[in-house]
Amino acid sequence: MTRILVTNDDGVHSEGIRALADALLPLGQVVVVAPSREASAIGHALTLHHPLRLEHVRDSTYALDGTPTDCVNIAVASVLRGLPDLVVSGINKGLNVGDDVTYSGTVSGALEGALLGVPAIAVSLQHGPGEWDFSDAARVARDVAERVLANGMPQRTFLNVNVPRVRPKGVRLTVQGARNHATTVTERHDPRGRPYYWIGEGQDEWMPNDRSDYEAIRAGYVSLTPLQSDLTAHQALEYIKGLGLERDAGVE
Amino acid sequence: MTRILVTNDDGVHSEGIRALADALLPLGQVVVVAPSREASAIGHALTLHHPLRLEHVRDSTYALDGTPTDCVNIAVASVLRGLPDLVVSGINKGLNVGDDVTYSGTVSGALEGALLGVPAIAVSLQHGPGEWDFSDAARVARDVAERVLANGMPQRTFLNVNVPRVRPKGVRLTVQGARNHATTVTERHDPRGRPYYWIGEGQDEWMPNDRSDYEAIRAGYVSLTPLQSDLTAHQALEYIKGLGLERDAGVE
Repeated sequence: MTRILVTNDDGVHSEGIRALADALLPLGQVVVVAPSREASAIGHALTLHHPLRLEHVRDSTYALDGTPTDCVNIAVASVLRGLPDLVVSGINKGLNVGDDVTYSGTVSGALEGALLGVPAIAVSLQHGPGEWDFSDAARVARDVAERVLANGMPQRTFLNVNVPRVRPKGVRLTVQGARNHATTVTERHDPRGRPYYWIGEGQDEWMPNDRSDYEAIRAGYVSLTPLQSDLTAHQALEYIKGLGLERDAGVE
Repeated sequence: MTRILVTNDDGVHSEGIRALADALLPLGQVVVVAPSREASAIGHALTLHHPLRLEHVRDSTYALDGTPTDCVNIAVASVLRGLPDLVVSGINKGLNVGDDVTYSGTVSGALEGALLGVPAIAVSLQHGPGEWDFSDAARVARDVAERVLANGMPQRTFLNVNVPRVRPKGVRLTVQGARNHATTVTERHDPRGRPYYWIGEGQDEWMPNDRSDYEAIRAGYVSLTPLQSDLTAHQALEYIKGLGLERDAGVE
């Protein structure tokens, strides 16, 4: 029996994870283990310094007071008692494209699956006006999941899927986009005259790249990017070699 | 005048950041903007949902109740009022090697520098028995910083420096290591019989790779890895293409 583990970053009670779990039901046994509250605020690494509570919410749905990374590990050790055939994380409310993927809890859930040797997918939906409608994103997730279950994924690699808020015109294979950071900082003063600061995400200027995740979304397409855990800048190794920092003698 | 921004993940009052700032003083003006408390627990992304307080600790040292990523942005906007010539993040208590770099706050501080177009370095020191001694790591940081200030770094790339707890035998240029995850989960029961879980980092099994950061540390060398913000698994694009998921028609 095919077993699919579903997790997310927005919490077990989010609409996105429900839509995702329902969409995957035709593909196998779906078990949901997700943070009991929104995990964005609690980090994405393993929780090593305090114990975690697992709560049975209903049927095959469990809530854990930890991160998406914790959820995947606890699910494997104590719920599934073994590896699932697929890990799917999402559907996140908001895109995870470009440089932001390095900070994404949704992506970290899928990454943890990949690190455990399990094919994995992260799914995110673009913000839009009005109510959230996860139906297109859920269908896309099901299609991608079906194909990945049938074919597997390369080692330490997983898929980052982003879905536009408009009806998708199609699906594009993309690379992670890059942008020029345009963070804004607003200084205010409290009634006692002490300053405080608001950070805002400014109008980012995306570096032109027709193949990027961002560009696919902008054009109304689903973006499909294979990601990996390796951050090594392999093409920079020669440059760094040229800095002459390597040595076979002690530091003084 | 060369301006160096120093931040970290362990908090502004940690010994590691003090040792780092002192070591960098001969290279230019050093400004410290770091989390007011340990940031590991508060995530690594931008803090967008609540305002941040900046506190002047002493001289050129400021504490911010945010993440390392916030610190870099607030420093640029409100302390330096412009970009520094270098961002150095650390010295972290504990290594940041292998897959863990994707979750590291120390690394995220340097990454934010790189995303802003500033050369950046993350520095971490291996755990060891007895007191922490940051002197070797601080010297290494100074040497690397000097070389990077003089030569620059490739776009969207930064250096991840890890220092062994033993006296370093030398410095090696490395790639990010990979390991087989061996997370352990221990189930306990509280006095009412309800289960709770402890996650532990098991004895990870590193995949053999003579060029890895982990292997350099194991051999007693400083590890120097160029990292980048791009997580795209470029070598997997062809495989994913073969899955036949791309399409130029809507989702149904």
